[in-house]
Amino acid sequence: MRTVDLIHQKRGGAELNPDEIAFLVNGYNSGEIPDYQMSAFLMAVFFSGMTDREVSALTESMMNSGASLDLSSIPGVKVDKHSTGGVGDKTSLIVAPIAAAAGVIVPMISGRALGHTGGTLDKLESIPGFRTDLSMEEFHAQLQELGLAFIGQSEEIAPADKKLYALRDVTATVESIPLIASSIMSKKLAEGLDALVLDVKVGSGAFMKKQVDARRLAQMMVGIGRRVDKKVQALITDMNQPLGFAVGNALEVMEVSQTLHNEGPDDLRRLSLELAARMIFLGKVTPTLDDARQLAEKKLVDGSAYKKFKQVVEAQGGNSQALDKFELLPNATGMREVSTPRSGFVSAIQAEDIGRACTLLGAGRATKEEGIDAAVGVILEVKTGEKVDSGSVLCRIYYTNEETLDEAAELIEDAFRISSQKPEERELILEVVG
Amino acid sequence: MRTVDLIHQKRGGAELNPDEIAFLVNGYNSGEIPDYQMSAFLMAVFFSGMTDREVSALTESMMNSGASLDLSSIPGVKVDKHSTGGVGDKTSLIVAPIAAAAGVIVPMISGRALGHTGGTLDKLESIPGFRTDLSMEEFHAQLQELGLAFIGQSEEIAPADKKLYALRDVTATVESIPLIASSIMSKKLAEGLDALVLDVKVGSGAFMKKQVDARRLAQMMVGIGRRVDKKVQALITDMNQPLGFAVGNALEVMEVSQTLHNEGPDDLRRLSLELAARMIFLGKVTPTLDDARQLAEKKLVDGSAYKKFKQVVEAQGGNSQALDKFELLPNATGMREVSTPRSGFVSAIQAEDIGRACTLLGAGRATKEEGIDAAVGVILEVKTGEKVDSGSVLCRIYYTNEETLDEAAELIEDAFRISSQKPEERELILEVVG
Repeated sequence: MRTVDLIHQKRGGAELNPDEIAFLVNGYNSGEIPDYQMSAFLMAVFFSGMTDREVSALTESMMNSGASLDLSSIPGVKVDKHSTGGVGDKTSLIVAPIAAAAGVIVPMISGRALGHTGGTLDKLESIPGFRTDLSMEEFHAQLQELGLAFIGQSEEIAPADKKLYALRDVTATVESIPLIASSIMSKKLAEGLDALVLDVKVGSGAFMKKQVDARRLAQMMVGIGRRVDKKVQALITDMNQPLGFAVGNALEVMEVSQTLHNEGPDDLRRLSLELAARMIFLGKVTPTLDDARQLAEKKLVDGSAYKKFKQVVEAQGGNSQALDKFELLPNATGMREVSTPRSGFVSAIQAEDIGRACTLLGAGRATKEEGIDAAVGVILEVKTGEKVDSGSVLCRIYYTNEETLDEAAELIEDAFRISSQKPEERELILEVVG
Repeated sequence: MRTVDLIHQKRGGAELNPDEIAFLVNGYNSGEIPDYQMSAFLMAVFFSGMTDREVSALTESMMNSGASLDLSSIPGVKVDKHSTGGVGDKTSLIVAPIAAAAGVIVPMISGRALGHTGGTLDKLESIPGFRTDLSMEEFHAQLQELGLAFIGQSEEIAPADKKLYALRDVTATVESIPLIASSIMSKKLAEGLDALVLDVKVGSGAFMKKQVDARRLAQMMVGIGRRVDKKVQALITDMNQPLGFAVGNALEVMEVSQTLHNEGPDDLRRLSLELAARMIFLGKVTPTLDDARQLAEKKLVDGSAYKKFKQVVEAQGGNSQALDKFELLPNATGMREVSTPRSGFVSAIQAEDIGRACTLLGAGRATKEEGIDAAVGVILEVKTGEKVDSGSVLCRIYYTNEETLDEAAELIEDAFRISSQKPEERELILEVVG
């Protein structure tokens, strides 16, 4: 088997067999296949695509390149949730406690912010003392005791995926649906799950700009799960405006707390409940999805999800008082209001621009090495479809560094579109796949 | 300017401007842009193509990456000829002496065999003593005196092209028309030419399998020349069967000698005369192409082209007696006849298979480092369209090593197709571009 011949075949649109895919992944992971051949192969995949069989083989080869977690000693059905990334998307922090409070075992393994979207670990770490670097023993023990633990992805999970992702990042081969699907699933399948709920974001603030692409990605991931007997469901959800009102790590933790007190924004609450219900249903706690929906709502409304979250925060070293006394969270030193010069209807809030502005303010990372500022971000005062008068406040910017403030503020102002016509209402949950 | 952004743009089908192309070529040549980014870019070019402006910019950037020859001190119009490579294609050795005998200055800079096609330098070096490593002083002096000299491409010409070609070879990005066109033209334009005649081969034995691709390649190269005010003409010629009868280095030199004695195969003679006529016309020796055709034929028939070739062989250290006494050329130790088991018409002689068989026998190289055996090869006894009886000899295999003989012979046997119907006649010269 010669690498150049396999590149040639993929370039011509042929299907590679599982042995050929494994040869490429293993050879690249061990360093026998050089970067320059793998990047040509990845670009050929970008153009030629991959069959379902190829995507499954790629996923399994990457998964098998490293360690797998074994959670079989913990009783109960293990269900995780993964989002493809959006602006203001703090659902994991709400969904996981609801599902765990309902009896699902939730081993939540999350990532950090990169680009314009936030990361669950960064949000959690804005709670003073919160540790995401649990040892495997601590992780197991906490799952056993509380049914929920949050950690980062270990270096040993799917190392081939890490190496491939780093190469894709510098060779303009990130935006390939089969490569995205296999990257996500190789990590998730190595985590010892029984089932997985996916939130595939679509819209201006998401990776997938078109619903047809989001659907294809969702179908591919559900198919990968099916071929290894893991139940996977995907919601395709709108990401044309930020989710909820808050964007920025500590600001989002405040909104999580409000939502777990049943006082959160409607869109965030609705999506969180639906995702949690899917986890509860796949976790076999209830016989029907409708029962799961009722149970999810009950666990939110009766405060047991909030209680679960507080317990988890304490178990992981965090100061749970900060969830009620927001002054204990990192606070920005300055605030600037953005208001509209004209009246009309908010017809769009470009989520990607809001996300990029928050990264500029310090809430995200331009490169992997950068630190983040947990305090900064944006609180929306309006959402798409609302009527505003000239001079109304559209949002508040929370900042600590004045140097990037003007640039960020300009991006944020431009993100809002005001029109004289009321825009058509958009569905939040667009499709269910799987 | 960031490399990953340029790859991204090309991936999306955008046109890069000349500065961006130069940034990529210079960065790659200097080692600042790594192989893995360039190979992703090349694969993106394979799929997205290039505009004429991009191809010209790429050609000029590669040309400017190294030295250029300055032949301005030599009076007369300098015209070279280049073939995209075929099996049994020894036209350079015939065309160059005819054009030089007619008064054109022919600085012929050639390559070596790689893959299934032969190389002009290898053929010349089968003449005992022949040196292709002339110094620049020797090359100038010989051009001044004889109007013709044969040398290999110096390391200083278009080094970026060499580096890119080596990368393309191992990343399955060779077969891209803009990359092929710019590679050829960057080298030729660095050679101080006034005009260039191209022989673009099409068919089973050529790089370009389809006439539409050959036409696109020819048009692209003619266009590159036009944009730098160099007159370039291209013939698109058939390469579905070997050209002439001989394939193999010394065997081809014998056929060159016969052709220069006006006793060569008809197809080889016709194509050589047409290519030489184009060089004479572009070399401004005659006012019209028809005059050039008459002059070319005269120079062949009256023996002055043969005389010119003999002088050049002697000037470059070769034993010119070997052109008349073939026993002075390297001779094979064994010969095997291949005959047909059935009667009918020769409907095809797969040139690529004949070429691959000759490489197996030792006439070509599988890798750049291999030596070649000048003596071995194949002499066809029939050409496409001829009638054969059962038991007729189709060709003779000349070999020195019995180890690969059976495998080569099998390839050669399979290369001949015999059918009961006389095949339609194929044109040799299919199109003229430019």
